[in-house]
Amino acid sequence: MRIALVAPSCPLKREAAEAVRALAAARGDCELIIHPQCFASDGHFAGSDAVRLAALREVMADPTVDAVWFARGGYGSNRIAGAAASDLPEAVRGKRFLGYSDGGFLLAALHKAGASVAHGPMAQDVLRTGGAAAIERALDWLVREEPASLEGGLAGPSMAFNLTVLSCLLGTAFEPDFTGVELLIEELDEEHYRIDRLMFHVTSSAAVRACAGIRLGRCYVPENDRPFGFDEEAIVRDWCSRSGIAFRGRADIGHDADNKVVPFRLGPT
Amino acid sequence: MRIALVAPSCPLKREAAEAVRALAAARGDCELIIHPQCFASDGHFAGSDAVRLAALREVMADPTVDAVWFARGGYGSNRIAGAAASDLPEAVRGKRFLGYSDGGFLLAALHKAGASVAHGPMAQDVLRTGGAAAIERALDWLVREEPASLEGGLAGPSMAFNLTVLSCLLGTAFEPDFTGVELLIEELDEEHYRIDRLMFHVTSSAAVRACAGIRLGRCYVPENDRPFGFDEEAIVRDWCSRSGIAFRGRADIGHDADNKVVPFRLGPT
Repeated sequence: MRIALVAPSCPLKREAAEAVRALAAARGDCELIIHPQCFASDGHFAGSDAVRLAALREVMADPTVDAVWFARGGYGSNRIAGAAASDLPEAVRGKRFLGYSDGGFLLAALHKAGASVAHGPMAQDVLRTGGAAAIERALDWLVREEPASLEGGLAGPSMAFNLTVLSCLLGTAFEPDFTGVELLIEELDEEHYRIDRLMFHVTSSAAVRACAGIRLGRCYVPENDRPFGFDEEAIVRDWCSRSGIAFRGRADIGHDADNKVVPFRLGPT
Repeated sequence: MRIALVAPSCPLKREAAEAVRALAAARGDCELIIHPQCFASDGHFAGSDAVRLAALREVMADPTVDAVWFARGGYGSNRIAGAAASDLPEAVRGKRFLGYSDGGFLLAALHKAGASVAHGPMAQDVLRTGGAAAIERALDWLVREEPASLEGGLAGPSMAFNLTVLSCLLGTAFEPDFTGVELLIEELDEEHYRIDRLMFHVTSSAAVRACAGIRLGRCYVPENDRPFGFDEEAIVRDWCSRSGIAFRGRADIGHDADNKVVPFRLGPT
């Protein structure tokens, strides 16, 4: 099992690469190919759009690569998602793609184009407290679709997104078909008033209203100068109620080491 | 000319109310009615949704009120915009509405329902450096549609929005018809990578692509831990170019005392 690591958003830290390489080597069931583009830097990004796209397309087209793993999030995968998901190379068939956060733009675009994608831990998560477990969970999924890696409550078609990314997908060419899908969301570093605004936006969408329900992962919410008066669960429940979307409880996903894997799929798990 | 002040988002500061009251009194051409709801407080908001909506609907329905002026932004007008713009009272005809920032949700909803709205300074702007000029500009507009209050470059149908608000309007019931409209945008406190993400979202919209062009107001951009590599004008130019939207230069609007008035209208100014 050969797993290629590329960075469609921001660059991977060297110490993260070394730690993940050591964990993968100790397993003995996978070979990790860390593309040098992971360490490229161009302004905010891990190389220019052209450099990031070329690395991604290279591993997508490589028939000896079994899975493509996003190194980390940040921002920028949306800038190359259209070109990345156009005219998919034959070698994409059967490959697994894994990432989350900003990587959600690519998950949406690749899924829409027919690729097999999942929302879950990325290489740089190794630097989190308890991060080794996140890496093992990700590799277990990539190597053998280990059921223990999955979010425990998945009972049917499902997708997972960072809430900000989901909001910015709506109305674009990468907007997923949410019909009948359980939609899992998580957020990082957005104040409660911003979560409320994003939920207004997302639940106002006719496309999102076709989903089977929303489940809320973990949000890491900074203090605001004006306390909002409601926490994130109350906010999500409120907008689900206003929009006629079922609120289906919490989800075991988020920007942390416990982040479970959520494959995008249309059949029962 | 009777101008009613209400706060559909966050509460007005007492010192701002006093300063604006003094400026209006000195003019002698308008009577300012500061609704007590402006000082209500409920969590993040200037009173609960019900309280804010009731105050707004009260002044909308009052035939002795000639104009409705939003006290300030913050967040929350989207939560009452649907109800505020439903089944408009007869007395709305001929009234002018003025606000910006979070108030853009209400501008969009009221404009869509047929009301006469404009993007421009709000009462709490009096507290900015040079803020008295912003208040005089706003009152000149509300009292007599003073041409000197207008953004100087308006040459046809136009609308103006905070970029984040615009992004969150897309796909909602309040999404404006941008066909042939020059779209002016401004932003506050969003890092360059966020402006880039918002521009990706906004320019991906087929509805926005029907606009006549985009002009960029002032953005007040905080430092990011990763310098983006491009400033806001380069970002907006890039996304306009990618999406086939004309970039028509800068606009004299923003979160500052120089913020000019942009009426939403479909005919030439």
